[in-house]
Amino acid sequence: DVGTLLEALEPEERPQLIELLGRDFDFSALTEVDDAVREEILEELETETVAEGVRDLDSDDAVYILEDLTDADQAEILQHLPAVERVALQRALDYPEDSAGRLMQTEFIAVPPFWTVGQTIDFMRETEELPDTFYEIFVVDPGIRLLGSVPLDKLLRSKRPVRISGIMLDEPDQVEATDQQEDVARRFQRYNLVSAAVIDEAGRLVGVITIDDVVDVIEEEADAEIKALGGVKPDEELSDNVWEIARGRFTWLLVNLLTAILASAVIGLFEKSLEKMVALAVLMPIVASMGGNAGTQSMTVAVRALATRNLGRGNVRRIVGREILVGLINGVAFALVMGVVAVVWFGLPSLGPVIGLALIVTLTSAAFGGIVIPVLLDRFEVDPAVASGPFVTTITDVVGFFAFLGIATLWFGLG
Amino acid sequence: DVGTLLEALEPEERPQLIELLGRDFDFSALTEVDDAVREEILEELETETVAEGVRDLDSDDAVYILEDLTDADQAEILQHLPAVERVALQRALDYPEDSAGRLMQTEFIAVPPFWTVGQTIDFMRETEELPDTFYEIFVVDPGIRLLGSVPLDKLLRSKRPVRISGIMLDEPDQVEATDQQEDVARRFQRYNLVSAAVIDEAGRLVGVITIDDVVDVIEEEADAEIKALGGVKPDEELSDNVWEIARGRFTWLLVNLLTAILASAVIGLFEKSLEKMVALAVLMPIVASMGGNAGTQSMTVAVRALATRNLGRGNVRRIVGREILVGLINGVAFALVMGVVAVVWFGLPSLGPVIGLALIVTLTSAAFGGIVIPVLLDRFEVDPAVASGPFVTTITDVVGFFAFLGIATLWFGLG
Ligand SMILES: [Mg+2]
Ligand SMILES: [Mg+2]
Ligand SMILES: [Mg+2]
Ligand SMILES: [Mg+2]
Ligand SMILES: [Mg+2]
Ligand SMILES: [Mg+2]
Ligand SMILES: [Mg+2]
Ligand SMILES: [Mg+2]
Ligand SMILES: [Mg+2]
Ligand SMILES: [Mg+2]
Ligand SMILES: [Mg+2]
Ligand SMILES: [Mg+2]
Ligand SMILES: [Mg+2]
Repeated sequence: DVGTLLEALEPEERPQLIELLGRDFDFSALTEVDDAVREEILEELETETVAEGVRDLDSDDAVYILEDLTDADQAEILQHLPAVERVALQRALDYPEDSAGRLMQTEFIAVPPFWTVGQTIDFMRETEELPDTFYEIFVVDPGIRLLGSVPLDKLLRSKRPVRISGIMLDEPDQVEATDQQEDVARRFQRYNLVSAAVIDEAGRLVGVITIDDVVDVIEEEADAEIKALGGVKPDEELSDNVWEIARGRFTWLLVNLLTAILASAVIGLFEKSLEKMVALAVLMPIVASMGGNAGTQSMTVAVRALATRNLGRGNVRRIVGREILVGLINGVAFALVMGVVAVVWFGLPSLGPVIGLALIVTLTSAAFGGIVIPVLLDRFEVDPAVASGPFVTTITDVVGFFAFLGIATLWFGLG
Repeated sequence: DVGTLLEALEPEERPQLIELLGRDFDFSALTEVDDAVREEILEELETETVAEGVRDLDSDDAVYILEDLTDADQAEILQHLPAVERVALQRALDYPEDSAGRLMQTEFIAVPPFWTVGQTIDFMRETEELPDTFYEIFVVDPGIRLLGSVPLDKLLRSKRPVRISGIMLDEPDQVEATDQQEDVARRFQRYNLVSAAVIDEAGRLVGVITIDDVVDVIEEEADAEIKALGGVKPDEELSDNVWEIARGRFTWLLVNLLTAILASAVIGLFEKSLEKMVALAVLMPIVASMGGNAGTQSMTVAVRALATRNLGRGNVRRIVGREILVGLINGVAFALVMGVVAVVWFGLPSLGPVIGLALIVTLTSAAFGGIVIPVLLDRFEVDPAVASGPFVTTITDVVGFFAFLGIATLWFGLG
């Protein structure tokens, strides 16, 4: 499709293609391309071209395209639009980023409750400018306050003389314009919605959110969570240039460097032991690495469960307890495995219990840190997917090196 | 809701509650609980109760509940159902796991093309047993082959005497029953669908897939990808018991242990150097850790781009080249930072270039491995989210330790 074509072109050619197509270019293609590509294109296009283009779109798509522009650019484009469309877009843009108000489209069908099914159907047959697609019609009072909704299948199955008030759902699916898109998405998922009314503080109907746009929110949320866990900024895109990407990743690596230096400082405490017994230097990364991986497992489960709202005050004790037990069980399992390996490898029987004990301590602490840190961050309203990693790594590295080198120093009397 | 309530109850109480509620228990609640919870409940319930319960459901929900049972249990339950429902469910269950056939519901409305809008609306008004919700009606020939579809809003906006053939979409959104659910989800997303026809090999209409169930597929895919990247099995659930979880995570940790032992073996090659210069033991985890994190960043980007089908033959060269450059840039940046830190820390000027060079080599290789390994795994049809981690870690650890200790050995003549 056109979005894919645009991305495949060279940057210079993209605005050229759009100007060339003129009125034939469907601006909704711009909702399908990477943010970076869209920004570049919009910078190059004439204000009039953009105004013409977004005018044909449903308001939600227009908002999606306009919302990342500067206020000045937005104002200039809006100025070229007829008053009705300008006001609708401005109202949506005035809602905060990532709010329901930014996701809604302001095109919807609303009828009074005293209309009949027949009147409603005739109205729809006669009106030219209906939304492109819709799944329910809304019922409002003269102040446009939302009274109910009628799904299309219900409307179709009712006889013409029946009053709308008789078939409408009294508690229509609705969200507030200031609700977070994330919460809206969770509602849609939980209650299998395809569309929901958006109301303002006064209970007035201001728009409708449809499932296709919620699906994009769900995808974006998942994308952001995966990237955050991998130390990549959520807004990094394939079309970004090398310098942007390098700069974005640098920050994460710098945080990791501080963590690593801290771990090295712990190792530095045991320089004497390492000098006396170099086998410790060979084995110590195993302990830290096993801890790191066990911690990441617990952290992944915690971050996931928090994101899906499956981990809360009701079950946090049980889950923390369970993770500690899992860490302990696997700690013991790998103590046995690695104990044997170490003894065979270095021919030194006492290395077995030393590395074994260190693994038990490290894997148990890793599991504990892996679950507790995301939970605490979440409680302090810091995104656990973004921030947990460095804390968990610090714990697993510091505990891993300290436990192994400390136990070895005591056991072999290296101090 | 009831699903949440069920999960909050003690395991023994769950089937009790259901038997107690009897006909009042809505079995669709079972589609909202964890797999482990559902399995336990279904084991406890009488076959007749389950048969009664799934009978009231849309076929897709019934299939979702039945598909994880053994063939014997399925057969026993199906036996208690009336023929029409039994055949419909059996047909869906005969399609492979994770196929469109398992996701579809077999309740849909299909009309002949020569009907008028009025006839169609009257049919819907008069028929008792319509699907619970639907967003389009299908048009079929006498052999039930799919000819087209009419979205409900289109039907509502057309006059009664108009023929269905005149308003139907000739190329309705459709998938094949054997298509992968993943691919179905991508179609829904790409084309903003709310429902799509499911056809069999002969082009016959066999069911319909609706967006609410596709949303669940999208969520499951994201969940599986996040868990895989974190070393957790996709089917691990919060309600699993400690032993199941410990066993599931053990496998991943075991793979990681082999990787870690390999890295240790590399360190073992440099025992002499480490004995002569213990600062190397203190600093070496920094190099490996920075490599691990840079590799994870590239791997995350690659796995994401592969999952969203944004990385393919068309752009793989550009992306690999870009990642290598990013690795090189950050390698140089951290060579400078860490070079200074090492010199100040140990008061040894030549440690600067040694750790700097090692970081450049390691971060560049990490970026290369982080992007190339997922791409190769994907080409050999191994899930890159599951399998990339251990390979990338092996590369970053082995290269990190080898580069740092090797360069140090040569530079300081420790060999
Ligand atoms: Mg960007
Ligand atoms: Mg429109
Ligand atoms: Mg945006
Ligand atoms: Mg659902
Ligand atoms: Mg929309
Ligand atoms: Mg959209
Ligand atoms: Mg590590
Ligand atoms: Mg399970
Ligand atoms: Mg039904
Ligand atoms: Mg299932
Ligand atoms: Mg979409
Ligand atoms: Mg369904
Ligand atoms: Mg469902």
